Amino acid sequence: MKNTNTIKAGIIGAGGFTGQELIRIFARHPGVDLTWITSDAYQGLLLNEVLPELAHPVYATLKFSTHPKTEQDIPELDVIFLAVPDETSMFWVEKLYSSRYKIIDISGAFRLSDPGQFAKYYGFEHSCPQLLPGVVYGLTEINREKIKTAQVIANPGCYATAAILPMLLIGGVIREALKGSECRVIIDAKSGTSGAGGRKEKDSLPYSKTNENFRAYRIKAHQHIPEIAEQISPVFSAPVSLNMTPHLLPLFRGLQTNTYVYLKNAPDVDELTAKMREVAESEIFVRYYENPEKIELRNVQGTNYIDFGFYFDKSSGLLQIIAAIDNLLKGAAGQAVQNLNLAFGLPEHQGLL
Amino acid sequence: MKNTNTIKAGIIGAGGFTGQELIRIFARHPGVDLTWITSDAYQGLLLNEVLPELAHPVYATLKFSTHPKTEQDIPELDVIFLAVPDETSMFWVEKLYSSRYKIIDISGAFRLSDPGQFAKYYGFEHSCPQLLPGVVYGLTEINREKIKTAQVIANPGCYATAAILPMLLIGGVIREALKGSECRVIIDAKSGTSGAGGRKEKDSLPYSKTNENFRAYRIKAHQHIPEIAEQISPVFSAPVSLNMTPHLLPLFRGLQTNTYVYLKNAPDVDELTAKMREVAESEIFVRYYENPEKIELRNVQGTNYIDFGFYFDKSSGLLQIIAAIDNLLKGAAGQAVQNLNLAFGLPEHQGLL
Amino acid sequence: MKNTNTIKAGIIGAGGFTGQELIRIFARHPGVDLTWITSDAYQGLLLNEVLPELAHPVYATLKFSTHPKTEQDIPELDVIFLAVPDETSMFWVEKLYSSRYKIIDISGAFRLSDPGQFAKYYGFEHSCPQLLPGVVYGLTEINREKIKTAQVIANPGCYATAAILPMLLIGGVIREALKGSECRVIIDAKSGTSGAGGRKEKDSLPYSKTNENFRAYRIKAHQHIPEIAEQISPVFSAPVSLNMTPHLLPLFRGLQTNTYVYLKNAPDVDELTAKMREVAESEIFVRYYENPEKIELRNVQGTNYIDFGFYFDKSSGLLQIIAAIDNLLKGAAGQAVQNLNLAFGLPEHQGLL
Amino acid sequence: MKNTNTIKAGIIGAGGFTGQELIRIFARHPGVDLTWITSDAYQGLLLNEVLPELAHPVYATLKFSTHPKTEQDIPELDVIFLAVPDETSMFWVEKLYSSRYKIIDISGAFRLSDPGQFAKYYGFEHSCPQLLPGVVYGLTEINREKIKTAQVIANPGCYATAAILPMLLIGGVIREALKGSECRVIIDAKSGTSGAGGRKEKDSLPYSKTNENFRAYRIKAHQHIPEIAEQISPVFSAPVSLNMTPHLLPLFRGLQTNTYVYLKNAPDVDELTAKMREVAESEIFVRYYENPEKIELRNVQGTNYIDFGFYFDKSSGLLQIIAAIDNLLKGAAGQAVQNLNLAFGLPEHQGLL
Repeated sequence: MKNTNTIKAGIIGAGGFTGQELIRIFARHPGVDLTWITSDAYQGLLLNEVLPELAHPVYATLKFSTHPKTEQDIPELDVIFLAVPDETSMFWVEKLYSSRYKIIDISGAFRLSDPGQFAKYYGFEHSCPQLLPGVVYGLTEINREKIKTAQVIANPGCYATAAILPMLLIGGVIREALKGSECRVIIDAKSGTSGAGGRKEKDSLPYSKTNENFRAYRIKAHQHIPEIAEQISPVFSAPVSLNMTPHLLPLFRGLQTNTYVYLKNAPDVDELTAKMREVAESEIFVRYYENPEKIELRNVQGTNYIDFGFYFDKSSGLLQIIAAIDNLLKGAAGQAVQNLNLAFGLPEHQGLL
Repeated sequence: MKNTNTIKAGIIGAGGFTGQELIRIFARHPGVDLTWITSDAYQGLLLNEVLPELAHPVYATLKFSTHPKTEQDIPELDVIFLAVPDETSMFWVEKLYSSRYKIIDISGAFRLSDPGQFAKYYGFEHSCPQLLPGVVYGLTEINREKIKTAQVIANPGCYATAAILPMLLIGGVIREALKGSECRVIIDAKSGTSGAGGRKEKDSLPYSKTNENFRAYRIKAHQHIPEIAEQISPVFSAPVSLNMTPHLLPLFRGLQTNTYVYLKNAPDVDELTAKMREVAESEIFVRYYENPEKIELRNVQGTNYIDFGFYFDKSSGLLQIIAAIDNLLKGAAGQAVQNLNLAFGLPEHQGLL
Repeated sequence: MKNTNTIKAGIIGAGGFTGQELIRIFARHPGVDLTWITSDAYQGLLLNEVLPELAHPVYATLKFSTHPKTEQDIPELDVIFLAVPDETSMFWVEKLYSSRYKIIDISGAFRLSDPGQFAKYYGFEHSCPQLLPGVVYGLTEINREKIKTAQVIANPGCYATAAILPMLLIGGVIREALKGSECRVIIDAKSGTSGAGGRKEKDSLPYSKTNENFRAYRIKAHQHIPEIAEQISPVFSAPVSLNMTPHLLPLFRGLQTNTYVYLKNAPDVDELTAKMREVAESEIFVRYYENPEKIELRNVQGTNYIDFGFYFDKSSGLLQIIAAIDNLLKGAAGQAVQNLNLAFGLPEHQGLL
Repeated sequence: MKNTNTIKAGIIGAGGFTGQELIRIFARHPGVDLTWITSDAYQGLLLNEVLPELAHPVYATLKFSTHPKTEQDIPELDVIFLAVPDETSMFWVEKLYSSRYKIIDISGAFRLSDPGQFAKYYGFEHSCPQLLPGVVYGLTEINREKIKTAQVIANPGCYATAAILPMLLIGGVIREALKGSECRVIIDAKSGTSGAGGRKEKDSLPYSKTNENFRAYRIKAHQHIPEIAEQISPVFSAPVSLNMTPHLLPLFRGLQTNTYVYLKNAPDVDELTAKMREVAESEIFVRYYENPEKIELRNVQGTNYIDFGFYFDKSSGLLQIIAAIDNLLKGAAGQAVQNLNLAFGLPEHQGLL
């Protein structure tokens, strides 16, 4: 159905939420042919039978394969998405490093440059720390050039994407205001259930404990904390002390972050506003809201946009940044495809609008 | 059905969420007879017909009356609850001040001591600022003695209750840690729809814009901000600069607040923990959680409890307090009945367990 | 806290939805002392710790015990509720039959008089069919006299209660209209998740597959089908051929049934209406709606009411009965307590309003 | 962005749910250029500003126009969608009949051939009954040939699509079984809120009365009843007596119908199954489920599929057909685009997969 110059893609771990979202995107991506999907739970079954809501003629005969065990189990492909637990990602990145495949890893296993942090936040010793420096952190708008030539891309976490991207976009502009500020950042974050439970292929949040409920979880312990701290530190003069509280929302997709920083010096708000508007105009998936009260999850659900805005309170010096994304798209599969597009020279937005 | 020594209560504005909640409580309150309820929307109709889910034999013949126009329209009662818009509350408090009725005002019209703040946050000039000093702020656990003898009680706001009460309970203990701290407080708050829309008798949030959605609203402009700032200022050495961001949760009842303050000096966390446990043991409706991740809305929904806990991060000096309440109970009707119980010498928890 | 003449009650399987609902009721039931609750999952833990939303002073020291293994593990009690899987119920009813305990069995194990049906609909051979004739089917409004003296009461299923009770109430009146009608009944039923998953102590419906979804399940195979068929057959001249399709609603509590029967002869609708109004007046928990469009789940949630109404279409002869209950109350724990009240000579509504 | 041979489309009433859904589809429909959208509420505003979740580069400059008042207000177009109240549809169809525009009317104003039924079910006298015979009923799979040449297409109702299409597909096969059956059909239908409130541009269902609730509405009075009765009558030997009970589900999109008919003669179930499988294979948007318990709303949400299956109970002669659609797609905008594709000679599925 697609022409022969298309990129051949495969997904290891295609049965989970992120895998399904990739499948959905590739159904209408003119430059990519999804030819191989694996899942232990669904092996041997037709995609259209397992996920009737994704049913699309291009997948008429696509079946779930078993997870591969060795390199020989992997067919001819251009790019492999790893939508698997961290440990499995380490196994495959180590195996396929320097292979002919581009790898886009959706897990967290290669997102940090300091191997020591994995033990603390992920609960494992990293099995191939020597590879960390060679992996590119896939925050598309920031690392565009590196992504183009990367062999292995560590796709950012969902909370991380929402928190880091606006901070870096604003941070460049308020360098003066930040000078001498205490390097302390508070993030109050809220996610739908597809983000909170996304690391496993199976659904684990029971309806009776999620519906009509709201609660914080993994306070100060969430694995995206060191990722965010590492990425935003360059904006400050020193390492950042980061407090992040994730919460579970009673809805399926969407994620919002409120980031709070006290600034030493008042920035020029008009200049900042003008600059943010400019940034948003030049970035197809970044939308800036002058009135941040207009940011709501339903504006980003099902899209690859990041919506953001800010408030600055002169009296207290508090800068507050609000951001919203679809955790399964800009926070996972969407950004992964943005990265694929870059890495293969396709238009960055292909398949994503 | 109840004996003749019971308190006779009436509700002006009984058709809204808070009014309904008061009705529900009085159905099983052995010391109170609810004999008069008013609602323009439902006047002339039987309570049991309008609100079948509240149906109770004690209300077999109770009908909604029209809203009163003058004092003469008010029957023989001991206490009147005002569950009406602020302007209507001002009208009635002015009229009934120094009357034989105790007044429990659920509106915001008498919650602030500085009349100037009403114009800024409520959008009106206060019509009887001379009465403000005589009204008691009904945060039960804190103002117990004054509530016992008050004639008019201003029942606290829902966000305010969740934010202030733990802050005052902890604040007393960490006075040393607070010394020299900047008087800056951040509150990231989330409420179910019954709180956000509670000021009108009719339902106004459409399903299609609320379900599967999440958004901030009235950032820095919410009318509970000056109320919280005024109440927590005594804990600090000076007026507090307060940033509060309320959000709308896709659920009906429940409210959570995250309060963040950077402390100058590290408090003794063990001492603080011990003290909080002690406080919780002496207060029937205050529950302290050593592990604040166990605080969730479903633990407080349908109850008059406030659940709270805290985290202190030594490296950054950040104190984070998490609290949860049912906005319609501890945040409105429940606390109002606690106050009624105090004011009439009944056991404080009567009708509330 | 309660006086010494109170009934002493225990619950085997108190950790599930129905068990929790019983606990909630007994917290305010003046005639019953709940002194023993068992749960394998929660054994050794304080009730107030496991279920903070139920926290009540009367339970300050109540802990979950392990499930009993033999009679000797059961303390001094007047009544035992079995809120356990069918197999466990059979074990205990057999053991405790002719003991000093009254037994109220919430499982399905004793609801059918024909032992053969258990194999077909429940998937097991009944272990003590000889006891079936001695067990009273606990549809309170219908079997009141028998319940008063029963030792073992089989509490009806939730779908069954909603479907049978209105049918029997109406059926008595339209005997003439039914004469010669085909004995064919269609029930289209919808339940919240607490009903559909209620047979296990643990939560099993994942949020991601339940939220924003709706589906039929166990069509023609649901275990309440033979129960309903048996109970409504007396209304007809012969055994009833029953088609029931249960559906899963994306909400927690509440259940609605639409029952359809084609009548041979047109009943006198005015007479039927008058009679139904009369029935409702004499039954505290039965509410008749002349306009069945006013029946909605939120009218019965949290209550022990059954709301019902009917339509009769002269041209086609179709009688449609709509009914709604709270599946955890009138459909389970509430009716169980109604039965307890009857069995111990307490006012039937005690603890239930 | 699209080439010059594309169809130029406009939508009168583009601000409602169906209008939005059409906009969404046209964003990725290669053969259609949406160049004109009208809405009184949003006139003058950019589409991307009003509906950020639909934001797409092809709409970068598209603004909402005011509703037209006369023909002169309508720009150069090939096709006009009417997503407006019935009365407005009648006005425009009368005005534009025999004009150069193809009209696809999403309202109900031209769905019935008997003008008398409009007064009964829609509450108005039809203003141009003389046009009814010339309008084609747009049930795509059934009226394909007529749709190809129609100038005005009356797009079917959402309940009607789900109920009629499977009935006609099955009906053709079981003609023998139907012979002599009573012409009585029961439909128990359930819809998300976007279907139930879709006739107005504004949102009208309040969250507090919809969330965690379920209720029947417009029993025997819903305006889709005569539409269904008219369309399925050919399957029977005589006019059908139809009972339909619509219900409101606490979710946004999706609709399920259970259709019940007692058959005089038992059909050959194997033959029927084989035939249904065959039908589904030849129809791109029709999916047949041998196990109807696998039909669930999430399989059709966001798609143009109709999923259906059936049960036949030999003992009672009951045929039960279950069907599910996305009410906004196959039940409205999706089927409308299917019809547009047919009418303009485009591949029937273009823009719909």
